Amino acid sequence: MVTIPTGYERLNEAGLRRWLAEQSALVARLGGSAETWHVREVSDGNLNVVYIVTGPAGGVCVKQSLPYVRVAGESWPMPLERAYFEQLYLRASEPHVQGLAPALLYYDPVRFAFAMELLSEHITLRHGLIAGNCYPNAARRVAEYVARRAFATSVLAEPFERVYDRLAAFSRNQALVRITVDLIFTHPYIVNERNRWTTPQLDDVVAKLRTDATLKAAAGRLGQRFLTVQEALLHGDLHTGSVMVSATDTQVIDAEFAAYGPIGFDLGLFVGNLLMAYFSQPGHESRPGERTTHAQWILTQVSEFWAEFVRLYDSSWSSARAGDGYPSAFFSTAEDQRAFALERTRGFSELLADTLGFAGAEIIRRIVGFAHNRDFESIENPEVRAGLEQRALTFARMLIVESRGFKTMDEVLQSLRAPKTST
Amino acid sequence: MVTIPTGYERLNEAGLRRWLAEQSALVARLGGSAETWHVREVSDGNLNVVYIVTGPAGGVCVKQSLPYVRVAGESWPMPLERAYFEQLYLRASEPHVQGLAPALLYYDPVRFAFAMELLSEHITLRHGLIAGNCYPNAARRVAEYVARRAFATSVLAEPFERVYDRLAAFSRNQALVRITVDLIFTHPYIVNERNRWTTPQLDDVVAKLRTDATLKAAAGRLGQRFLTVQEALLHGDLHTGSVMVSATDTQVIDAEFAAYGPIGFDLGLFVGNLLMAYFSQPGHESRPGERTTHAQWILTQVSEFWAEFVRLYDSSWSSARAGDGYPSAFFSTAEDQRAFALERTRGFSELLADTLGFAGAEIIRRIVGFAHNRDFESIENPEVRAGLEQRALTFARMLIVESRGFKTMDEVLQSLRAPKTST
Repeated sequence: MVTIPTGYERLNEAGLRRWLAEQSALVARLGGSAETWHVREVSDGNLNVVYIVTGPAGGVCVKQSLPYVRVAGESWPMPLERAYFEQLYLRASEPHVQGLAPALLYYDPVRFAFAMELLSEHITLRHGLIAGNCYPNAARRVAEYVARRAFATSVLAEPFERVYDRLAAFSRNQALVRITVDLIFTHPYIVNERNRWTTPQLDDVVAKLRTDATLKAAAGRLGQRFLTVQEALLHGDLHTGSVMVSATDTQVIDAEFAAYGPIGFDLGLFVGNLLMAYFSQPGHESRPGERTTHAQWILTQVSEFWAEFVRLYDSSWSSARAGDGYPSAFFSTAEDQRAFALERTRGFSELLADTLGFAGAEIIRRIVGFAHNRDFESIENPEVRAGLEQRALTFARMLIVESRGFKTMDEVLQSLRAPKTST
Repeated sequence: MVTIPTGYERLNEAGLRRWLAEQSALVARLGGSAETWHVREVSDGNLNVVYIVTGPAGGVCVKQSLPYVRVAGESWPMPLERAYFEQLYLRASEPHVQGLAPALLYYDPVRFAFAMELLSEHITLRHGLIAGNCYPNAARRVAEYVARRAFATSVLAEPFERVYDRLAAFSRNQALVRITVDLIFTHPYIVNERNRWTTPQLDDVVAKLRTDATLKAAAGRLGQRFLTVQEALLHGDLHTGSVMVSATDTQVIDAEFAAYGPIGFDLGLFVGNLLMAYFSQPGHESRPGERTTHAQWILTQVSEFWAEFVRLYDSSWSSARAGDGYPSAFFSTAEDQRAFALERTRGFSELLADTLGFAGAEIIRRIVGFAHNRDFESIENPEVRAGLEQRALTFARMLIVESRGFKTMDEVLQSLRAPKTST
């Protein structure tokens, strides 16, 4: 089923040293000679193998596709081409997200491996939030990352021909989109052997979710939108584990799920993961109330993320159009500008609904589906964990079912703080 | 700019005879020998050359791409590949629209020409409506054509992988999509040398349209939706000149604009053209009131078209799903079915808004843009023509700007009959 081309080899440590030593630019970046380099496997995501290599002069990060899902093993085959699509995404997005994503240094199309800039000071935003750290700029920087890349790859910025060329290329990334369709939009709502949850505590909650007709109809719509609304090139897996942070820097990684889709999908995944960070905070307390302030701070980051995205995207949408969407020549007078501003406001209102819906779907699938989050998983007491997960699930359902009922992100968070209001 | 491959030749009459004579299936269909066949050029659309060839046993229709737009000449180059995309569309849609489109008999990838079943008894629905004829089944049959083909090529009917493969293929049909983007969604709203209109009678109306900020913002949204909502494989040019009718039969032709897009685009083009047939009727009267009944009958066909589409599409959507959209496994109980029915109702409400918007855009571009309709063009008195065109433009603007204000198609037509009500 998975084709392994001639010349492909899984890079073990020795192979990796040889592979790096063949590229003079990488050798120069590392410094010294191959046998002196320090090699460490740091595979953390579910799919691929990742190495950090350091030498006297510097370091690189190497990522390689395996012909199967790394955490599942050979019983779950997976085409190697995901490395190809990730580097294609990196090349497409790089001009627009300078300083927000590590630079691609080298791609090997035979070994489906690539080297990129090493982020040696960084940890994932997920780990940072679990640890109780604040990153004052992270959410805004991720908003900037989404806004700039989404705008630049849309028909607002470019003639549709360039967008359709890219759409055609990324519509081949089907193995990864299949994972999204199955694990986010299908399996959590039905019986499937890959699902798992905190059992037996959540057994009844999960059973109820699968008979929740209103939720399933709305989840069906979200899946349909994910597959049919092709607004921009998406990262496709923009959770807090795909964001690397240091005290002063924010970088987005792990774009192998790249595909055209609705912009609200990237926004929603990030919002959903911030909300899970929020809901899970009490589980990381060593004394009651210890994380209350931190949890509230995370909520402010959801607000700031959305506001910054709207600010930047609207700024481009209103003035930097060179594409076929909303042709620039339509809007010259003050009256044109007013009508166009109303139209954009309406667009952001639809985008908020998408964002909330996808955020809800992400929360649900991380609690009752195949791939879970350390935010909850690292809470050892299953009673505590289940209680927090249940709160998150209730909120996620509301996000999905009532996504079109909110005018602003602040309203959404308000209803979280006062869960009994019927917004 | 346009690549002409080795072996391409424009088929003149002699070349056409040789070309047909090389295909035994076509020879058998025609009967007799090449020199006895009757050849007639019937090019009617704007882009291509079309021949009708008849022999003692039967006939075929042959369509060939030229490296330019036929009605504009060599000053408007146009890639030959449109014949490739039309035959690709015919192959993709054929299993689903049996009896509603002529069969593809042969495609020649070097000459960008293909032969299809001859519709010898048929005229275009446009000509028939101008002549004052009724075709009781035509609108319903076109509805069936759209419903079956759109459903079959969507993620409701198929795993998304097959849809994305087709999407990738048709996203190459960029030369034709460029025509749609320019001629429907851009030029009519700005100054462009290709625009024309009944002048001087409509000069003020056209000038006003180009400063209509609300209309332009809404037209911008329609163009954006056309380019980003990829719900199904579309015909892409479904006007009444693309529908061939006889007293008892209805066949859809001319699919070189085939592309993925919003289903409401096909529906809206057909509705827009029926409405233009309606508005133009008084111009074809030889005595006042002669066409009143016919015009009212055309309005009933808009209703029947929409109702039949909804009936058939909903029937498939509710029960024939084998794709990733709204997974079948979600909806098993009576409660599931009720929630799903509500969800589909909501979907049709959005589709109605799309349909009305695209119908309005089609009307506007046919009156103030490059490509006009014989419905109006065949009205010789420019005062009469301009008066009817102005009514159509006013209605079209309302369709675009208020598209989301209607709950049913009957409401739309009601407001037409009583144009002063503020629906």
